[in-house]
Amino acid sequence: MAGYRGRVEVLRIGHRPGRDPRLTTHLALTARALGASAFHLHPPDPDVARQIEDVNRRFGGAFRIEGVREWRSFMKSWPGTSVHLTMYGEDLDDILPRAKLTPPVLLVTGGAKVPSELYQLAGYNVAVTHQPHSEVAALALTLDRLIGVPRGPAPEGAQIEILPSPRGKRVVEHR
Amino acid sequence: MAGYRGRVEVLRIGHRPGRDPRLTTHLALTARALGASAFHLHPPDPDVARQIEDVNRRFGGAFRIEGVREWRSFMKSWPGTSVHLTMYGEDLDDILPRAKLTPPVLLVTGGAKVPSELYQLAGYNVAVTHQPHSEVAALALTLDRLIGVPRGPAPEGAQIEILPSPRGKRVVEHR
Repeated sequence: MAGYRGRVEVLRIGHRPGRDPRLTTHLALTARALGASAFHLHPPDPDVARQIEDVNRRFGGAFRIEGVREWRSFMKSWPGTSVHLTMYGEDLDDILPRAKLTPPVLLVTGGAKVPSELYQLAGYNVAVTHQPHSEVAALALTLDRLIGVPRGPAPEGAQIEILPSPRGKRVVEHR
Repeated sequence: MAGYRGRVEVLRIGHRPGRDPRLTTHLALTARALGASAFHLHPPDPDVARQIEDVNRRFGGAFRIEGVREWRSFMKSWPGTSVHLTMYGEDLDDILPRAKLTPPVLLVTGGAKVPSELYQLAGYNVAVTHQPHSEVAALALTLDRLIGVPRGPAPEGAQIEILPSPRGKRVVEHR
């Protein structure tokens, strides 16, 4: 698989400002690094947004982070298909080829306590294994299956570029 | 790739008990769900260990979690190769085919502040993109590339089994 050229965005539902900042930041950075165009955060959290914008400034690219107040209406008005990542869903590799047919794709990630309505609102409910693990891992594998790990030059506008190195760090500053 | 049949274990360095419990738990659960045999946690943290053992009890399998006091000597005495996951390393897809030749594979994940010695001690330093994201995402993609996402029946001894479902939850209890 991989090689999907449509737009992929991520919706994170049920973030708890003050409690989850690291995990939600990991989700947003994973979305950014693995080729999603935007991260929609419900509820909005200016602290997380600031961190991601700081990474954008240093590492470049056009990734967007946006706050969402009403996730239900957000999902209902999504123009393509939505894929809810949950250990209770159908197998990833069975579903992605179908989900790709209706771009743009919205990947939806909840927390431990997801409202049951989400299972109905989602176009697909998809599992990355039926074992408990991590929404960060599930998002990473799904993006990899859809888009593939980006290679090549740093994103446009990068101030910092990291080059592959067998030992230690090779960092180039573009100023 | 994928399909590697050798043993894969994970070493987490620089965990901060009391500060990182969720992130480290996500790492350990990702290791378990994606086919690693063991998670070595430096320094030891009984709270995280208890959570993982609870998941083992309910979901089955033979995954081990073990505390590590001296990560340097642990790495030096590792019988196979070690692969340190870092955004500064060489590209994952270039390195994994070589790393696989010397089983068992130890995947090493640090935190934000990794001792520079680790870059020397590791058999390989490997990047899953050269952008900042998440050690959980990096571990997930590396395990997927090595082993592939497990499918099929629940692990041996499972009390709970989750079945694929297009909507809602299908949970079987084996008692």
